[in-house]
Amino acid sequence: MEFKVNSKILEKTLSKIIPAVPARTPMPILENFLFELKSGLLVIHATDLEISLKSSINVAADENLSLVVPARLIYDVIRSMEDVQINFSVDGNNKLKLTTENGVYNISFSPSEDFPESPAVSKSKEITISGKDLKKAIDQTSFAMSKEDMRPAMTGTLLEFNADGLKFVTTDGHRLVRLVYKNVKTGTDEQYIVPERAISVLSKLLGEADVKIYLGKSHITFFIGDVEFSSRLIAEKYPAYSSVIPLENENILKIKRHDLLSTIKRMMLFSSSNSKQVKFSISKNSVVVSAEDIDLGSNAVENISCEYSGEKMDIGFNTQYVNDILTHVDDEEVLFKLHSPTKACIIEPGKKLEGEDIMLLLMPVRLNT
Amino acid sequence: MEFKVNSKILEKTLSKIIPAVPARTPMPILENFLFELKSGLLVIHATDLEISLKSSINVAADENLSLVVPARLIYDVIRSMEDVQINFSVDGNNKLKLTTENGVYNISFSPSEDFPESPAVSKSKEITISGKDLKKAIDQTSFAMSKEDMRPAMTGTLLEFNADGLKFVTTDGHRLVRLVYKNVKTGTDEQYIVPERAISVLSKLLGEADVKIYLGKSHITFFIGDVEFSSRLIAEKYPAYSSVIPLENENILKIKRHDLLSTIKRMMLFSSSNSKQVKFSISKNSVVVSAEDIDLGSNAVENISCEYSGEKMDIGFNTQYVNDILTHVDDEEVLFKLHSPTKACIIEPGKKLEGEDIMLLLMPVRLNT
Repeated sequence: MEFKVNSKILEKTLSKIIPAVPARTPMPILENFLFELKSGLLVIHATDLEISLKSSINVAADENLSLVVPARLIYDVIRSMEDVQINFSVDGNNKLKLTTENGVYNISFSPSEDFPESPAVSKSKEITISGKDLKKAIDQTSFAMSKEDMRPAMTGTLLEFNADGLKFVTTDGHRLVRLVYKNVKTGTDEQYIVPERAISVLSKLLGEADVKIYLGKSHITFFIGDVEFSSRLIAEKYPAYSSVIPLENENILKIKRHDLLSTIKRMMLFSSSNSKQVKFSISKNSVVVSAEDIDLGSNAVENISCEYSGEKMDIGFNTQYVNDILTHVDDEEVLFKLHSPTKACIIEPGKKLEGEDIMLLLMPVRLNT
Repeated sequence: MEFKVNSKILEKTLSKIIPAVPARTPMPILENFLFELKSGLLVIHATDLEISLKSSINVAADENLSLVVPARLIYDVIRSMEDVQINFSVDGNNKLKLTTENGVYNISFSPSEDFPESPAVSKSKEITISGKDLKKAIDQTSFAMSKEDMRPAMTGTLLEFNADGLKFVTTDGHRLVRLVYKNVKTGTDEQYIVPERAISVLSKLLGEADVKIYLGKSHITFFIGDVEFSSRLIAEKYPAYSSVIPLENENILKIKRHDLLSTIKRMMLFSSSNSKQVKFSISKNSVVVSAEDIDLGSNAVENISCEYSGEKMDIGFNTQYVNDILTHVDDEEVLFKLHSPTKACIIEPGKKLEGEDIMLLLMPVRLNT
């Protein structure tokens, strides 16, 4: 068995597959790539049993073969090479032999029987979305996934298909983000929950090009250029989030995002490390933002100009959450839609974009003064 | 008490002083800056008792005052501000009050009595060196300081003054670096050992401008622009390193640094994690470099062209040490001066620079085959 491949081409492919290799695992076989050579195509797989990645390279080879090689070692070796032609061959000794103009490298391989099978891709339900839109949805929503395993559904991102379009929803119980692409239409009403690790790996694989998504019962698969990325779905029911979204928040605060974010970053230094509380005292033309750390004896007050349509209101938030939300709104102006100091607040960008609708919800905290 | 200062000017000064604030300390007072206002000058100090940093800003203020403020908090607050004028004032409440156009910030301060005194600068012995030369000496030698506390002298950098010029020496017993600036002359023969932490902080403070160095019995002080940086010296005798430097290494191997470094980076992946051994088999026109990890069953061999003046030789090194040394030699070609497989090897850049002399020494390891 022998084939040749350019180091830089192989490096590019391996770099896309290696994110599925687990850093630590009780199953050492998962620390390997599966190399499958068939009909002149080298297919490379990796999986941590939750996600799996697969891609392929054309190589001139007659024989078929599959073997399992240490992923980190082979990736580091290929990456450390200049732009050279590499000849791969297998001798009787269970060694994969790489030969270049100046060097020879032998790497032990294992038989491929024990490598887990990739999940079969069910191609019955297919949708297409631009890589750019998918990446944007992840960038704007993923921060609000819950880090707590108590309610597994909330540790993932909900993809919800219905007549309104495709919705991305994340929540940790304190805040919620919902982004709708109205122009992505599918027939039926369905919900899929994608785990955090898959969302994070997916985000790095996405470019401008279109992505095909296949939806199965237990798995979701993304075809991104020459990469096939599958993830297990979270088999739980997503909380009925719609009922917590208030409809009667008629007091509108309009404020420059950059001004408020800059203030919030300073308030994070002054709010107490326990409560993380920041207070907004909102009146017609200005918001007085304040925070206090009683233990350290420090406090801060800032005044920001705004437009506000309602009655004067004092409302408290978690500084960190306000910071997260403002960081993920992509507009110069931001609207806070308020009802009262104890009811959920809706945050939206000042301008709506054609075909999409983003809404961020934040629960206030009880003011301790 | 009241004074005004621009946020960006203050940020720049604080950023130079904060490296002396310890990250963790059993003495909470050291987590503060000492602010001393005298005769219209705001002097800011920080120290961890080993190193101390001091700088000052002109402020329009009549009164004198000194107080101790939480270093990290005030630095983060100032850094988070736009380019604004800040008014500092002190009220009766032990609060430092910062006022800007839109904000008011109160920070508790402590009295300054408990803040440690800065060491007095003995100005009897002064030398001047360009910041660029001093930075270069640190960049090229600091990697070889010992990380082991068993022999405290070797955990620092030796500054040695004598008739040859100013020498910088570091060693951990396995390798040694000696850089001589022949044009820096001082009267007497003297040795000073500067601790690793001081070397690391110093490196970041240095620019192009000249640096004045004052040498005391227990402390060394550097004046770098408007910053005064003092460090405790290591009060130990430096090992008599000259006796280990061989004079009879007449077999010269001349090789392209980039080629060898590139090979060594791959050998680091194949050498066993215990021995880290790499073997050089040197002949007239080529070096065969090889490594093997018996546990993993992997090995690598590469061939690099060279010029070599001696008899064929097989010699072993620690891959990591060869990598460190090649990374710190600043030339396209590098010379290995060899005697035999068990004697120290001298490494030098291919070209010598006017007025300076750098020598790197590396102990071989016994080949295990």
